[in-house]
Amino acid sequence: MDGADDRRFLDLAIEQARIGWSEGGVPIGAALVHDGQVLAVGRNRRVQMGSAIRHGETDCIENAGRLPATVYRASTLYTTLSPCFMCAGTALLYEIPRIVVGENRTFEASEEWLRSHGTTVDVVDDPECVALMERMLRERPALWAEDIGEEA
Amino acid sequence: MDGADDRRFLDLAIEQARIGWSEGGVPIGAALVHDGQVLAVGRNRRVQMGSAIRHGETDCIENAGRLPATVYRASTLYTTLSPCFMCAGTALLYEIPRIVVGENRTFEASEEWLRSHGTTVDVVDDPECVALMERMLRERPALWAEDIGEEA
Repeated sequence: MDGADDRRFLDLAIEQARIGWSEGGVPIGAALVHDGQVLAVGRNRRVQMGSAIRHGETDCIENAGRLPATVYRASTLYTTLSPCFMCAGTALLYEIPRIVVGENRTFEASEEWLRSHGTTVDVVDDPECVALMERMLRERPALWAEDIGEEA
Repeated sequence: MDGADDRRFLDLAIEQARIGWSEGGVPIGAALVHDGQVLAVGRNRRVQMGSAIRHGETDCIENAGRLPATVYRASTLYTTLSPCFMCAGTALLYEIPRIVVGENRTFEASEEWLRSHGTTVDVVDDPECVALMERMLRERPALWAEDIGEEA
């Protein structure tokens, strides 16, 4: 996989984040890719589904359905924002070997832990991912606090 | 909360595990309790919902709905089996301060990590929880492998 592929798959995650924002939700999206094929995309659906566990990454992995271990272990997870512990733990459960992170300026919790377990974490530092989260922090701060288990 | 309360709430989790087994699924259950009140119960629903993220603990937390951070931070999570990284990460995301674990003989991954973040992890070593998992490992080994991201 080369840089152009990473860009294309991260753009799918960003599209999901934009959709999530337009739905009144948290603008974080993800894509799961195996061997150049997109298995699923997903987005944070806390608001849309009244969910406490549908972050961008977990929604994406849920949308991909039940997969053999061998598929997860040869896949890459693209996410617009650095994963929380829940999403990082999900990636470790399934031993997804590589995570491409849109940005980690507005939130970062799990990257050291992921790397300590052998996961490759590549941070793109994408300006649109940062802008999506900065608007979120400005306009929907209480929702963001809820999403990461903080008091508003 | 005293030992009798812990027993009562763990029994709710065990009841969920039994239901899950009878449905053809993975026999792991959970309960989330705040201030002596049961907020939700849940069970692994990989088979029942075709889900990759509905473990006992995450299903329970999802069933509890969107809660304020202050509620999670004063709750106890009861689970029949020691949490995988996904479920441990979910507990850490919401800063659930205490987890009561039915047993950790048949699976253990996250307890050291949870404790390193300040979570109290109390292991009951309950014979029925062990028996439920031993039957699972004997009769549905491929399903169990899938549930923890291993090759069958």
